[in-house]
Amino acid sequence: MTSRPPFTVSVFIGTSLDGFIARLDGDIHWLTSRGEQAGDMGYEEFVAGIDTVVMGRVTYETALAFGVGHWPYDGMHVAVLSTRLDTGADPRVTVHRDLDGLVRALTERGTKSVYADGGQVVRSFLRAGLVDELTVTTAPVLLGSGLPLFGPLDADIALAHRSTTVHAAGFVQTTYAVEREDQDT
Amino acid sequence: MTSRPPFTVSVFIGTSLDGFIARLDGDIHWLTSRGEQAGDMGYEEFVAGIDTVVMGRVTYETALAFGVGHWPYDGMHVAVLSTRLDTGADPRVTVHRDLDGLVRALTERGTKSVYADGGQVVRSFLRAGLVDELTVTTAPVLLGSGLPLFGPLDADIALAHRSTTVHAAGFVQTTYAVEREDQDT
Repeated sequence: MTSRPPFTVSVFIGTSLDGFIARLDGDIHWLTSRGEQAGDMGYEEFVAGIDTVVMGRVTYETALAFGVGHWPYDGMHVAVLSTRLDTGADPRVTVHRDLDGLVRALTERGTKSVYADGGQVVRSFLRAGLVDELTVTTAPVLLGSGLPLFGPLDADIALAHRSTTVHAAGFVQTTYAVEREDQDT
Repeated sequence: MTSRPPFTVSVFIGTSLDGFIARLDGDIHWLTSRGEQAGDMGYEEFVAGIDTVVMGRVTYETALAFGVGHWPYDGMHVAVLSTRLDTGADPRVTVHRDLDGLVRALTERGTKSVYADGGQVVRSFLRAGLVDELTVTTAPVLLGSGLPLFGPLDADIALAHRSTTVHAAGFVQTTYAVEREDQDT
């Protein structure tokens, strides 16, 4: 990316030690059962600095499935990146067909701080050079298979270590800043 | 595994944040260039407690390629797990055709503490339930592709967090013990 959008993008996500964010069928009980012991691990503090969540259809539908009456994104704008979701399906969200259109729409809205959630969105944002900060919380388990957090890149992404915290139940949480060669701040 | 061998098995390995131990062509400059700033990160202390290194042919040939006159495993027995390597090729190593034969041979030698090195050997030992302790040192970089550390498993492997240390250059090193249901100590 030569031109940077006027908002920051942060990732805040949990994985197994072998890099999966869910089992192949979407199950995250291996994560949530361990997470119950560990509390929110900084999530509330993280989202307090966020005005917009971006997610894919799969993450959106997972959030819906938490049940009627519980919408976990109150107070944040929710943008869904999906080629399939009906654009008028849910008044709480905006639907965007591609990354360029999403970036334009968020820029026009005056977005300041984006939370990129879900594997597909994280990978798309990383490949596009749009991620500024990455907090990975590693659960103490190997799953062997599942939905991966990371994927192919066109080039290495160098990271700068910011902080590491060990939480209850053996979660290790590390925050990195993405190092950029095109610093244009 | 219902019967456990009379030696412990430890893994001590560096990876990218996306879980690769080398690029697809075997290159580890991305690791060693960052590692130079970080020193040995506990490696000397780790190998001081080891009597036997187990590696695959690829790791063995990489060690050989470090050059004549420099053999990095002085003071340790070296066992190579390979279906192809000539068993008499190198008087410094023993060659084993399969994991069962290796475990038998190491048991007969009175082995106490094994260092399992290289992706193939680590994955084979994990699948066989033979790993006791796992130290993963994560370099602050995403590679996008490469040779993976972890692979498929028959079942989850639950881990117990032991310690986390942040080293220079942003390396995050975490040691886990493998949790076992068949504790037979």
